[in-house]
Amino acid sequence: MSTASPTAQPLRLLFIGDVLGRSGRAAVVRHVPRLREKWALDFIVCNGENAAGGFGITEAICEEMIQAGVDCVTLGNHAFDQRETLVFIERQPRLLRPINYPPGTPGRGANLFTAARGQQILVVNPMGRVFMDAIDDPFAAMERELGACPLGVGCDAIVVDMHAETSSEKMAMGHFVDGRASLVVGTHTHVPTADAQILPGGTAYLTDAGMTGDYDSVIGMEKEEPLRRFIRKTPGARYEPANGEATLCGVAVEIGADGLATMISPVRLGGRLRPEWPQEWGAAA
Amino acid sequence: MSTASPTAQPLRLLFIGDVLGRSGRAAVVRHVPRLREKWALDFIVCNGENAAGGFGITEAICEEMIQAGVDCVTLGNHAFDQRETLVFIERQPRLLRPINYPPGTPGRGANLFTAARGQQILVVNPMGRVFMDAIDDPFAAMERELGACPLGVGCDAIVVDMHAETSSEKMAMGHFVDGRASLVVGTHTHVPTADAQILPGGTAYLTDAGMTGDYDSVIGMEKEEPLRRFIRKTPGARYEPANGEATLCGVAVEIGADGLATMISPVRLGGRLRPEWPQEWGAAA
Amino acid sequence: MSTASPTAQPLRLLFIGDVLGRSGRAAVVRHVPRLREKWALDFIVCNGENAAGGFGITEAICEEMIQAGVDCVTLGNHAFDQRETLVFIERQPRLLRPINYPPGTPGRGANLFTAARGQQILVVNPMGRVFMDAIDDPFAAMERELGACPLGVGCDAIVVDMHAETSSEKMAMGHFVDGRASLVVGTHTHVPTADAQILPGGTAYLTDAGMTGDYDSVIGMEKEEPLRRFIRKTPGARYEPANGEATLCGVAVEIGADGLATMISPVRLGGRLRPEWPQEWGAAA
Amino acid sequence: MSTASPTAQPLRLLFIGDVLGRSGRAAVVRHVPRLREKWALDFIVCNGENAAGGFGITEAICEEMIQAGVDCVTLGNHAFDQRETLVFIERQPRLLRPINYPPGTPGRGANLFTAARGQQILVVNPMGRVFMDAIDDPFAAMERELGACPLGVGCDAIVVDMHAETSSEKMAMGHFVDGRASLVVGTHTHVPTADAQILPGGTAYLTDAGMTGDYDSVIGMEKEEPLRRFIRKTPGARYEPANGEATLCGVAVEIGADGLATMISPVRLGGRLRPEWPQEWGAAA
Ligand SMILES: [Fe+2]
Ligand SMILES: [Fe+2]
Ligand SMILES: [Fe+2]
Ligand SMILES: [Fe+2]
Ligand SMILES: [Fe+2]
Ligand SMILES: [Fe+2]
Ligand SMILES: [Fe+2]
Ligand SMILES: [Fe+2]
Repeated sequence: MSTASPTAQPLRLLFIGDVLGRSGRAAVVRHVPRLREKWALDFIVCNGENAAGGFGITEAICEEMIQAGVDCVTLGNHAFDQRETLVFIERQPRLLRPINYPPGTPGRGANLFTAARGQQILVVNPMGRVFMDAIDDPFAAMERELGACPLGVGCDAIVVDMHAETSSEKMAMGHFVDGRASLVVGTHTHVPTADAQILPGGTAYLTDAGMTGDYDSVIGMEKEEPLRRFIRKTPGARYEPANGEATLCGVAVEIGADGLATMISPVRLGGRLRPEWPQEWGAAA
Repeated sequence: MSTASPTAQPLRLLFIGDVLGRSGRAAVVRHVPRLREKWALDFIVCNGENAAGGFGITEAICEEMIQAGVDCVTLGNHAFDQRETLVFIERQPRLLRPINYPPGTPGRGANLFTAARGQQILVVNPMGRVFMDAIDDPFAAMERELGACPLGVGCDAIVVDMHAETSSEKMAMGHFVDGRASLVVGTHTHVPTADAQILPGGTAYLTDAGMTGDYDSVIGMEKEEPLRRFIRKTPGARYEPANGEATLCGVAVEIGADGLATMISPVRLGGRLRPEWPQEWGAAA
Repeated sequence: MSTASPTAQPLRLLFIGDVLGRSGRAAVVRHVPRLREKWALDFIVCNGENAAGGFGITEAICEEMIQAGVDCVTLGNHAFDQRETLVFIERQPRLLRPINYPPGTPGRGANLFTAARGQQILVVNPMGRVFMDAIDDPFAAMERELGACPLGVGCDAIVVDMHAETSSEKMAMGHFVDGRASLVVGTHTHVPTADAQILPGGTAYLTDAGMTGDYDSVIGMEKEEPLRRFIRKTPGARYEPANGEATLCGVAVEIGADGLATMISPVRLGGRLRPEWPQEWGAAA
Repeated sequence: MSTASPTAQPLRLLFIGDVLGRSGRAAVVRHVPRLREKWALDFIVCNGENAAGGFGITEAICEEMIQAGVDCVTLGNHAFDQRETLVFIERQPRLLRPINYPPGTPGRGANLFTAARGQQILVVNPMGRVFMDAIDDPFAAMERELGACPLGVGCDAIVVDMHAETSSEKMAMGHFVDGRASLVVGTHTHVPTADAQILPGGTAYLTDAGMTGDYDSVIGMEKEEPLRRFIRKTPGARYEPANGEATLCGVAVEIGADGLATMISPVRLGGRLRPEWPQEWGAAA
C-alpha cells in the first residue's frame, strides 16, 4: 500500500493506446516526457503490441518507450509477433502480455508497480475471445487477480487493459469489475471511442483508447493493400504502417484515495484527429 | 439535381446512430424536432435496426421516427427481426435495408431523397462481412450505386451508413469512396468513436456513430444477462433494453456545393456521455 | 480396475453419433437392444445433444435411451437447449456435458462407469473451440482427466467424445491422447467420416461418428428451411428434424487388456447410407 | 453434346480429394494412370489446392497431374498461395479456381471439357462462406452456371467441387442442384466422409472426398506443430506436410445418358485407411 496520506493529491494516470510503428513511437517520444512533467503524471501505461512495424515489439523498442517515461507496456494478440519477445519478456517486468494465455506462456499478464509518489499500481492485461483466438476465460482471470490483490488492500489503483474486438465484451468487463478496479480501457480496434465515463460503481471506463498512429490509413496501415484485400481475394503486398504524423491517443484518469476514479478524459494530441485533453490539467503543448 | 444556387448555404445534415428501444426512441422524439429547427437541418438520417425492443423495427415505430423529423431510416443485420418489416418496407420508401442483401430481398438498400431546400440526397446502406453474416460484396455494391448516381451529377450529397463490426472494414469503405461521397458513417458497434475527420478526398468520415441508447448497459441491453453469458454457457433470460436515459449519438456534417464535406462534428446529447455538438451551429438545448 | 482376467475377451464398445429427433431415437430403440445382445457389447455410449427435436435432450428422452441399453449419454454445444437439463443432469450420472464448460456449470464432463463384465470405463466429453463458442481449453481438460485416472491404472478403457467443428482440432485431440485413451471419436458435424484407424500409439480414432438421423436432409433437418437461409437472409420457418428413416451411425471398437484398441470399424445401419459393421462380430440384423 | 448413343456405356468418373504435398502427388502419379486404364475412366477431376507443399499449386505440379491423366484440377481457399498461379492459370484451361471469387480474379471457376469418348463435361468449383473468407454467393453462382449450360442440353455431365468447411453448406449445395448436376462432392476438410449417396433427384453426393495425403498427421501436416498451436499461443515452426504414404481418397461415379448418377462409391487406396473402391469396376491394384 501507498505511503501517501489520505489528503494527498489524486493519482494521475495516462493510458496510451496501441502504438503503431515508427510514427506511433515518434509520438510517444515527443509527447510523453513533456506530459509526464506538465501534468504531474504519477503513472503511464502504453499498449505496445503494434510498435514494431505494426507487428509486436522488440526489446529495443520496449526500452525506448520506458526511457520516454512509460511505466508499463501492455500487449495483445500481436504479443509474440517478434520472436525475441518470447525471451526478453522474461527479464522485463514492465512488459505484460495477455493474462489469459495458456499456463506456461513466457512473461506475465499482471504486475504490481510503484508509482511516482510511492503508490502501488496493479496493471492487468486480459484479452477477449469473441472474434479472436480461443484462449482461457478473461473474466475468470480478472476475478483471480482481483482476489489476489484487492483494490485498497493490495494496491492503490488497478488499471485493466482489456484487449478485445467487440464493444460488448469490453463493456461487460467494465461492469464486471466496476467498483473493484480504477480504470478499464479497451484496446485493439485502433479507433478511439467517445464513451468515456465513470461507471456507477466508480470505475473509469472507455471502450477503446484508439491507436497512437496515422489516422489516414486503415487501422494504421498504408491503406492501399488493406483496401485491395477487401475487394480482391488474391495475394498482394505486405502490410506497411502508414507514415503520416501519429495522433497520440489515450485516456487520462484521476484516482482518489479509495482507488476509484474521480475524473476521466480522452487524450488526443497531434495528427489528424481533433485535439482533446483534460483542460483542468493545464496546457498540453 | 438541386435547384439551389451555388452561393446557397451549405447543406446541413444530421446522422443518428442505432436507436435502441424505448429510451432510444424517446431521445429521438425529444431532440429531433428541436434540432431540426434550431440548427436549420436540411436532412436527417437515423439507423433504426434496434428501435423495437432492441431487435428490428415496426411500422408504427418507423412512422414515429419520420413524424419526429427523420427523413430516412437505415437498418443493418437486425433489419428483419420483426417479420412485419418484410411487408411494410415495400411501401415505405424512407426505410432502407442493407443494399448487399441477396437479390429478391424485400425493400431497397439505397434511395434518392429531396431535402428541405430541394437538394437531392442519395442514402446508401451497405453492410460489412467481417465477423458478420455472409452476404454479397459491399464495395462492389457501393461502386454500382456511385456509378448510377454520381455525386454532383445525379445528386447533391451522398450519405453512406456502413453497418459493420470491424473498424478496418469501415475505414476501408471510407477511403474507397473518398471524394465520391459526402459522408461515410459506421453503425453497429453501439459505441461512438472519436475519429471524426474529413478524409483527404473530401469525404466526411466517422467509424461509428454510436447508439442512441442508455450507456449504463452492455451495448444498450440490461447488463446482467450479457454479463452472465460471457461467464456461464447456460441459457438464461432474454435480452432486455436498458431503460436509463439515452444519449442521442450521431454526427453533424456540412456539405458544400460540390457535395464534399466542409465540417464534421460529433453530436452527443443527454444521458451519461459528455455532451458534444457543433458549437458553430448554436445551442443544442 | 476390472476384475476381468488378462486372458478375458477384449472389451467390445459401441459409440453412436448425435441422435437426431424422433427418427434418430427410433433407430436407437430399434437397434441397440438387439446389437447389445448379438454383439455381446460391454458398453454403449451415445451422443444425445440433438435428441429432443434437434435441440438438446429431456429427462424422458435420456431415460428412454438408457432403457434401450445406452450406458452413457454425451452432449455438446446443444447441451442445455432444453432448460430442464440444467436440473436433471445433476441427478443423472449417466449424462455428461462438455467438460471444459466453465466451473459451476451443472452436471459433469467425465464419469467412471462399470461395464457389463466389471470393467471400469472412463468417458470424457471435451468440446472444441475453433468456430465454436469460447470456452476453456479442451486439451488442458483432457490432460487433467488422464492424470486423475490414467488408462490401465484408474480404469480399463477411456472413451473420448470430442465434440468439435473442425477436422484439425479433432485430429489434434486424437494425437494428443494417443496411447493414453482407448478411443477418440468426434461428433457435431452430423456426417460420418471414413478415416477410422488405430493411431500409432494404440488409440482408436474416427474424426466424426456421424449423426443417427435422416440423411435426406441438411444435417438432419428438413432441408427447405436451411437451404432457404443459405440463399436468402430473411427470417423463415423453424428448423424441423427430417422424419425419414434414420441411419444408426457410429463406431465399434475392441479394446485389449492394456486399454488400447485392437479393432475399429464403422457402424451404419438402416436409412439411406450403405450398411457397414464389423463383420467379424456376426450379423447386424 | 456428346456423340455417344443412348445405349452407350455409362460415363465413368473419378474425383480425387485435396492432394497434399509430395506424398499426395506421389499417390496421384502411382494410381491414376493405372486406374484410368483398368477402370476405363472417362474423366478424372482432382483438387490440387494443397499440392505444392500444402499451400497452393505450381505450374510444374499442375502439369505433372495432367500428365498422370487428370483432366481437370480444381482449387479452393489456397488457390493463389503460390503467386505464379495468378499468371499461369490464365493459360491453363484445365485449372479452375473458386467460381465465386470477385469479378476480375485471374482464371475461371468453371469449364466445359471433352471426355474420353466425346462426352461434354462441365466442371464447376464453388466455394462455401461459412467459417471461410467473405466472397460472393456460391448458390447464385451455381444457378448462373446451370442456367448457362443445363445438364442434358449444354453438356452430358456436371461435376461440382464444393469447397467448404461445414457439412451443412455442402449438403445444402447438394440439394440445391439435385437433379440438375451429376455429382456434388465436397473438399477442404481433408477427411473423407462416409455418406456417399444418390440424392432423391439423381445427383450423386458426398460431403467430403478426403485428402490424398498421409493420415498420420493433422489434416496432412506433420502433427507436432499443429498440436502445439492448439495448446500454446506462441509462434513456432512452419507447417510441413507429413511424409508417410498417402491414401488416394476420392469418389467413383457412373453417370447415365440423362446425366444423372447411377452409382457412387468411395475410393480409398494405399496409406493408413481401409481400402475401398467400386468392386464392380474390377480390381484396383
Ligand atoms: Fe493493436
Ligand atoms: Fe490487437
Ligand atoms: Fe447491427
Ligand atoms: Fe445496432
Ligand atoms: Fe449435433
Ligand atoms: Fe454440436
Ligand atoms: Fe485442402
Ligand atoms: Fe481448403
